[in-house]
Amino acid sequence: MSENQRFAGIELGGTKIVCGIATGAGDVLERTSIPTRGPEETLVDIKTWLEPRLGDTTALGIASFGPIYVDPASPRYGRIGATPKTAWRDFDLLHSIREWTALPLALDTDVNAAALAEIRWGAARGHDNVVYVTVGTGIGGGIVSNGRAVHGLMHPEIGHMKPRRLPDDDLDGMCPFHGDCYEGLAAGPAIGARWGKPLNELPADHPAYAMEADYLGQLAVNQLLTPSPTKQNFGGGVMNCTELLPMIRDAAARHLNDYLDLTDPLDAAEELIVTPGLESNAGLLGAVALVIDAS
Amino acid sequence: MSENQRFAGIELGGTKIVCGIATGAGDVLERTSIPTRGPEETLVDIKTWLEPRLGDTTALGIASFGPIYVDPASPRYGRIGATPKTAWRDFDLLHSIREWTALPLALDTDVNAAALAEIRWGAARGHDNVVYVTVGTGIGGGIVSNGRAVHGLMHPEIGHMKPRRLPDDDLDGMCPFHGDCYEGLAAGPAIGARWGKPLNELPADHPAYAMEADYLGQLAVNQLLTPSPTKQNFGGGVMNCTELLPMIRDAAARHLNDYLDLTDPLDAAEELIVTPGLESNAGLLGAVALVIDAS
Repeated sequence: MSENQRFAGIELGGTKIVCGIATGAGDVLERTSIPTRGPEETLVDIKTWLEPRLGDTTALGIASFGPIYVDPASPRYGRIGATPKTAWRDFDLLHSIREWTALPLALDTDVNAAALAEIRWGAARGHDNVVYVTVGTGIGGGIVSNGRAVHGLMHPEIGHMKPRRLPDDDLDGMCPFHGDCYEGLAAGPAIGARWGKPLNELPADHPAYAMEADYLGQLAVNQLLTPSPTKQNFGGGVMNCTELLPMIRDAAARHLNDYLDLTDPLDAAEELIVTPGLESNAGLLGAVALVIDAS
Repeated sequence: MSENQRFAGIELGGTKIVCGIATGAGDVLERTSIPTRGPEETLVDIKTWLEPRLGDTTALGIASFGPIYVDPASPRYGRIGATPKTAWRDFDLLHSIREWTALPLALDTDVNAAALAEIRWGAARGHDNVVYVTVGTGIGGGIVSNGRAVHGLMHPEIGHMKPRRLPDDDLDGMCPFHGDCYEGLAAGPAIGARWGKPLNELPADHPAYAMEADYLGQLAVNQLLTPSPTKQNFGGGVMNCTELLPMIRDAAARHLNDYLDLTDPLDAAEELIVTPGLESNAGLLGAVALVIDAS
């Protein structure tokens, strides 16, 4: 693989789609953002922008919201699973792209892809065990263990675990499957429903911040106690409130209560829990990282 | 590696130590069980039994309770970490064994090792993504992802995540670090403190069973949503109450609430959550699997 080769990428998110062309060195040459609508209309929009730009590209990577069947051996490979976005349920994403390109394709969740991109070009360079969390319309998490994206029965869906609820939080929770899971209590829609405003319109000393940081700190601890990453990236729209990151670190340390001896210099909390180095390109470059890894 | 080679193994548990000799085919030739006391006395007991039997063995594997430093690059490699078993904290396990044998050594947590053994010889043959949970004096979990044991900052310590508490459970929780984490609410000591008896002395329709199954079902769901195993083995003393396993499956399905499409025949709950195929030899054979994998 040459760093001068050109790759196409699609990041399929719940709110918007990012399409782009990047080099094998991780330089984004062109990109566009398209609002996510129903699957058929959205795929027409993607094709309209991307197809004319594929001429000198080597492969096309697809980084999608989940759940999505990512095991090539599954009869459902490339289909969307039981998502709250009902119009997308069971949609055959991979097939609908295969119809208009013969390029090699690679597919994974947006967050697994972003974790791979952060390792290759971003804030997790040199790390083999990485978690990438996005906090926006929903909460998703990608995991890389021993250098490889984690899959199995499905793929990580860490936003649907349940946090310990805070006593002063009386929101029922917004997840149609689990009510008050992490996604149901701490994604953007939950913040809006609880406080009437998004987090970025509230002051940093508003109780919304401490509550959000506590839930996300619990999520970070669950990861430290499961895949045991040496780097956790927290991205997504809610994380644009920059006051939140140090509060998440404090909450994680409080919940962990010195259980792991984080005494090595590497292990300081400010190194363990960070924002993505690739910022809003993490998903798009994740899609590109998928095809580079596969080639 | 020949299946006729002989390997030594040590499984270091909170209650007892198992030492043994097994073949590369996973046949246990000899084994003994020693009560766990303080580290110095216990290591004398291990040496007394094992050293005379090492003559025709190829390597020695060590599968230990955690937290333990398993990264060979760490200056603390082979030392016990912040365990509730205070006499063992910071004990240099690997060094104390190296003092009396020059054999190649391999080290991992008892539960990571057991997961590898279940893949090699037990109930998880053919699986690459496996979780092994033990429910006894404590609750530990090992994870194999893409065929490799999961490590990172430390190693999986899933028993120290926090479940959603049941409203009719007023136990404070027994974990000195986290109070009411899974280990604090659902390991053997919590059952004893809550009901005055171990689970095997209570009838299966006693509320102790439903409560235990609910907590362990939540733990199983957390795993399905994180490393996404295709096989979860639940072992340890508490699981000797055979009525518990189907109740855990039911509780997991209830908490998951159809989020993952478990419709393929492979994915049926009775295949996903099982008892260990190697039964009480899982840890010892895990220690042997470690040295086979390392050689």
